Parts: sequence; C-alpha cells; structure tokens
Amino acid sequence: MNKVFPVPQPAPVPTLAPLDGNAITARLKELAAFSDVPGELTRLSLTPSHKRAAAQVSHWMREAGLTQVHMDATGTIVGRYPADRANAKTLLIGSHIDTVRNAGIYDGNLGVLTAIAAVEALNAQGLRLPFAIEVAAFADEEGVRFLSTLTSSKAMAGIFDPKSLDDVDQQGISRAEALRSFGAPAERVAECRRDPADMIGYVEVHIEQGPVLEAAGAPLGIVTGIAGASRGHIRVRGEAGHSGTLPMPMRHDALAAAAEMILAVEARGRADADALVTTVGTMIIAGSAVNVVPGEVQFSLDVRTLSDDLRQRAVADIREAIDEIAARRGVRAVLDIGHEVPAAPCHGVLKERMAQVVEGLQLPVVRLPSGAGHDAMVFRGIMPMAMLFVRSENGSHNPREYASPADIGLAAEALHAFLLKTAGEV
Amino acid sequence: MNKVFPVPQPAPVPTLAPLDGNAITARLKELAAFSDVPGELTRLSLTPSHKRAAAQVSHWMREAGLTQVHMDATGTIVGRYPADRANAKTLLIGSHIDTVRNAGIYDGNLGVLTAIAAVEALNAQGLRLPFAIEVAAFADEEGVRFLSTLTSSKAMAGIFDPKSLDDVDQQGISRAEALRSFGAPAERVAECRRDPADMIGYVEVHIEQGPVLEAAGAPLGIVTGIAGASRGHIRVRGEAGHSGTLPMPMRHDALAAAAEMILAVEARGRADADALVTTVGTMIIAGSAVNVVPGEVQFSLDVRTLSDDLRQRAVADIREAIDEIAARRGVRAVLDIGHEVPAAPCHGVLKERMAQVVEGLQLPVVRLPSGAGHDAMVFRGIMPMAMLFVRSENGSHNPREYASPADIGLAAEALHAFLLKTAGEV
Repeated sequence: MNKVFPVPQPAPVPTLAPLDGNAITARLKELAAFSDVPGELTRLSLTPSHKRAAAQVSHWMREAGLTQVHMDATGTIVGRYPADRANAKTLLIGSHIDTVRNAGIYDGNLGVLTAIAAVEALNAQGLRLPFAIEVAAFADEEGVRFLSTLTSSKAMAGIFDPKSLDDVDQQGISRAEALRSFGAPAERVAECRRDPADMIGYVEVHIEQGPVLEAAGAPLGIVTGIAGASRGHIRVRGEAGHSGTLPMPMRHDALAAAAEMILAVEARGRADADALVTTVGTMIIAGSAVNVVPGEVQFSLDVRTLSDDLRQRAVADIREAIDEIAARRGVRAVLDIGHEVPAAPCHGVLKERMAQVVEGLQLPVVRLPSGAGHDAMVFRGIMPMAMLFVRSENGSHNPREYASPADIGLAAEALHAFLLKTAGEV
Repeated sequence: MNKVFPVPQPAPVPTLAPLDGNAITARLKELAAFSDVPGELTRLSLTPSHKRAAAQVSHWMREAGLTQVHMDATGTIVGRYPADRANAKTLLIGSHIDTVRNAGIYDGNLGVLTAIAAVEALNAQGLRLPFAIEVAAFADEEGVRFLSTLTSSKAMAGIFDPKSLDDVDQQGISRAEALRSFGAPAERVAECRRDPADMIGYVEVHIEQGPVLEAAGAPLGIVTGIAGASRGHIRVRGEAGHSGTLPMPMRHDALAAAAEMILAVEARGRADADALVTTVGTMIIAGSAVNVVPGEVQFSLDVRTLSDDLRQRAVADIREAIDEIAARRGVRAVLDIGHEVPAAPCHGVLKERMAQVVEGLQLPVVRLPSGAGHDAMVFRGIMPMAMLFVRSENGSHNPREYASPADIGLAAEALHAFLLKTAGEV
C-alpha cells in the first residue's frame, strides 16, 4: 500500500517579488535562528538573541528602502518610508519580535516581515505615497521576562509607565538595565510618542492564534477588535473529611461545589457563544488525597469579549451562580477579579478598508475578534487601529504553530493593497 | 461580661478503677510522648519511637496481669490472659500503636489501651474466664512508611505475604531490616498465625473517624462491617487551546468534562446515601494556566460500601456516566480501577453481643459501617470479627481528633461487659 502524503499547498504567484510568501517564510526561518536556547525559538525581550534579531531586522528594513532605521528608547527597531510630500501624516505598521519560550516562528515576527515586504514592494515599484509609513519591530509584547508588558508600543502611544523601568526579571535585572545592555537610550522614552494628530493610525498583521479561520476555510480575517478581559480566581471553602467515613448527606465537598461552578462558567460563555469566551484554566485542591473529601479548592476565571458591557454582565451572572451554588451546598465561595482590561475595537474606516482589499483578492471576508492581546490594543482611544489575521494551524505559542507560505503571501498582498487603497483615500 | 467556658463533661464513675476513662486518657497522653518528631505525634511503623512505645505497652500489659508478653515476628506486642481451664479457646483483642504523621492520640492506641484496661479490670476482680484473652498492639496499620500494610494482623490471620519483607521505605530501608532493628524475629513470621479452630474471634475498639456518632449523640457505635473499596483514576483528554481565541462551540475542554463527571460521581453516591460513599479527592490539569483551555485532566475515584454488589454496580454506573459525558463532549475518558478490596462484614453473633452490652449501659444502639480500613478486616473469612466505635470529634489522622474521657470509659466498660457476656455464652 502506498503511503499517502499531504498534497503541498501551491503558493500563488505574487505580483511583486517581495510579496512572495515563500520569501517571507524563508526570512521567518532565518529570524528564528536567533534564539537564547539552541534547538528551539526562545527569544525573550531585550536578550542577546533579541539584539541579534533586531540587527537582522534593521538590515532587512534598510534593504527594503526604509530610512532612519534606528532603535528607540524601548528597544523597538523603527524604519521610515517617507511620503511623496512634506507635512504628510504617518501610518504605523508593526508587530513584535520578542517571543515566548519554545515559541513558533510566526507569532509577532510575521507582522514585522509582512510590513517590511509591503514597503519593499512599494520601493520596488518606485512608489511614494501621500503619507509616510513607519515600520516598528516592537521589543516587548509577550510579557514573559518582566511583569509589565507592551511597553514599547505604549511608549509610541504615549502611555509608557516609567515605573516599568524598575521591573526586574528572574535574575534580578531591571528593565532599565536590560535596555542599557540592549543599547536602547531609555532616558529618551518621551521622544517615542507619536502625536496622534500626525498619524493615520496603526495597522498590524498577526497569525490568528485560534482555529476560526481554519474552520471557515479563510486565509485572512478582519479583526473587529481586541477583546477585553476580566481575570480572577474563585476560592471555595467547604469541609475536609475522610472519603470512607463521611456520609454523603453530611458533606460540604469543595471540589464538587467547584465542579458545579465550573459548569456554570462554561454555561455562561455558551449562552453568548458568538461573542463571549469563559474559561477555567487552573485548579488547586488544598491537601488533596485520594481518600480525603476536598475541603478547599481554588480555580481561575478568564472572561473575554469585545463588549465591555457583556463582560461585566457575564462576570455578574457568574458571581450570582457561584453564590447560589455555595449557599445551596453550605460552602463559602469568593470570586476575586484581580485584572481587568477594556476591549479595544478596531477603527471602522481602517477595518472596512482592510475588508475591501481582502475581498479584492477574491477571498472570503471573515470578521472575528481577537481574544488574545496585541500591541495594537495600546492605541485604543489614541489613534485609529486595525488588524489583519492570518490563518494559523495549531494555535500559537508553541513550535507547531503554522501559517502556509500561500496565506503569508496573501497577507503581504493585502497589506500592500491596503497601503495603495489608503493612498487613494487620504 | 464573663467569659463563657464550655461545661466540662463529667466522666461516669466506673465500676472498676481500670475502666476509668480519665485513667485511660492519661495513658493515651503518656503514650503520645513517644514520637519521632518533637511537638507532635508521628510514630511510623518500626521506628525508634515505636520501639519505646512498644516497651511502655509491654509494661502496662504485665501490670494488667497479662502474661507471656512478647514481641512477635512482625513487631506486634502480644500478652495473654489465661483461661480458667485447659484447652480453652482464645479471644483476640487488638488495635495498632503505629500512627500517621502529625497524628491524633486516639487512633489505634485507644483500642490497645481499652483492651489492656478490660483485662486489668478482670484481673482486679480476680476473674478468669472460660477462654483465654490475647491482647495485640499491632505494629503496622497506617501504611505510611511502607507500601504494604496490615502486615502484623495479617500474620496472625495467616495471610502474611513474605514479599512485603522486601518493601522499602523512603530511606531505602527494607521492612526486613526495619524488623531486625526493631528486635522482631522476622524469620519466625509463620508462628504468628492463630489457628481459627482455636479462636473465638477478634474484637477491636477504635475511634469512629467520622461524624456519625457525634451527629447521633451516641458515645458508642456497633460496626456492621468494614466497607469494601474500589479506587482508581479517570483520565480525560480533550483539546488544549487559548482561552481568548478558542470559541466556546469549538472547545473540547477536559476540565469542564471532568467537572461534569465529578458531579456524576457525587450523584451516584447520593443515590444510595445510606449505604455508599463516592469521592473525587485529587485532580491534576496538565500544563494548566489561567489562559489555557485545559486539554488533559486526571482525577481520582474512591467508592466504598459494605455491599460488594452495590460497589460493583456503582462503579459500572459511574463508568457509564463518564462514557456518556465524554462522547457528548467529544473528549476521551478512561476509568481505571487500580485497587479493589472486598467488604469485611462483622460477625453476627459477636456484633449482636456487642449491641447488647451497649444497650446494657443504657446507651443508644447505633449501627454503622466503617468506611476506613482496620486491622479487623484481615480476619474476613478466617475468624469471627467485631468492632466497637467510640464517638470522636474532628475525624482522625490529625491532632484535633478527640474522644472524651467519658466516652472512653464507656468503651472500656462495654468491652469488659462483652468479655463477661462472652464467658456466659461460650
């Protein structure tokens, strides 16, 4: 019997060489070699491997025709493609080149390399647009090394918190020290701010990190916004007892109560399944043993949606359900929401322009929220923001994440088309 | 305002001084001083503190009029109170003097000291009975130090497994070596066996370890038998995903599935609440994080009841429920029962005789199963066996377990009366 191999997916022939998905994929692989850990991609923010990757990105930026390529005060590599006129506005295109531990090669890096590719294509065409383009390779999105995160995009948005300079990593190195070693002029962070009056907005290409586009058979997706999140934990206190000697009617089993609460969390998410996700991801049973009825359990809660109102209602409903379950079972339960981030909706005009270029590529137009956070979210309420998702297999944050060269080529084509379309509408 | 103190519970005036609950309690406290860990009671099997406790128990046995006091091949201290005639049968009364870590002072020790007290009372009365009495302070009930357990009572029952001599503790010391250090002649284990033809049976006094007698307001309880147990674990495999990016309808959440299964386990126990206990005590989520939809979960199952048939049916029902939940949710779930112990019913005649003496003390007669294991269970199918429970606060296996001197005195009185009643019925 012959072994069946998967049919290779042919990449479309690109209009312009820089937009070739195979070429971009080759660069992604080249960039992935800059890692702190041999044999995998681990490139935490402001590490030596990050510095080598930043130098490579700077090189590609200059090759693409970007000028004034430099490292800013937060370690971001920025290059500028000037406008065809003086006093023009600027469109910022970015993503990040730091990674999680044992990462995939697409998360973040793809957005930077498609931005460079789109500019490179313009440059190859000899085109200047009625606005300047800045490409940013942000330095700090994953938040693995330091407690605070998104500091480099926040500096551009003008909301950098100077206290984050005092954050220390596990080795006790502060962000300020790490920036100094990296070669970033941290004292000049105020200069990173872009005046919103001068900006068209911010655009970011990123892999989806979820299965929606794959399930829909769509290479690209129009992001409707970045979901807000409420995170916290629930502590349930019942009464521990011996599994053999404590009769069922006398039990106040904290784990059974928690199980019912977990199903209530799931049910609340399902009740607004098109707009809301609710997750319990961790659970700890205090002093757990096979022969002990659990007396105390703690579990996490993660609620995300594009609607801040729906999120607040969902948390309130979950709180009510938990209280009811606790009262009925004679246990105590406390829900503590420790972390809240409002939603960051994408800008109507930029978003619909992105939808039009995707449609122009004869692709299905799928609109979806981003449940994960991105650099784009820091621009909420500061300047227009839009995102383009690329279909990805196997989620993200693991070496199995995968975007095909064909889809990557389409993303670069879409971004290039978006720039041209923006030129016609400025 | 005056501070309100709890009213001290008066101990009944005993018929005979050795049966005084205060005296027995004083010995329990004295025995508790023999510990491997200062400031708490931790007396694992065959340790130096166990050896010192064994010496103290031997001393009390001799004082009580027990003869031929010796350490047997498994470390048990045995003393004999001869019958009033030759060729008489023997009644064995025992419990254990090893403890768990950070134990209470009653578990096990109470049974040994009430047995000694009952014999001491007979001796004080100058009474010999038409049967011999043996008191055993077993060496290995808790099973904390070695994997195998109940080896000393098993040796008397004639079901000692020689392989258990090769068990090693966490320091790599084998049971055989530990017995040698303890001074027990391990090579003579075969001599421990009591010929059932020569035995009236085995009787044990023990704290309840559960809340039933306390809730019933009864100082003593007639044990109907020691519950059989099925133990195992369920492994649930769903699909992990990002909590923000995986829509609810596309999830195969292993934790939500497990939560539903835990409630099914609880519901099965509740459906036969007077006869069955079902417990999930442990749970592990693989790679758990607040922002990850759980992909794999494992949890424990513990099912106990006096009816082996009910136990088998309950496990089958739980297996069916798990399969249904797994199929409906698109996850895989496997229930693996790794450990099964059949129930050990108490002997009708001995049990009813115990009920009669409890009634004779003007106490309520409460019949209840033991959900926890005891030395008594090894005599299942070998010789008649009965147990008397003593009301205990705060369960067992913790320093807060508590039996009042009054209740302890009643237990000693009941055991003494049981001996006299047995004398009349041999």
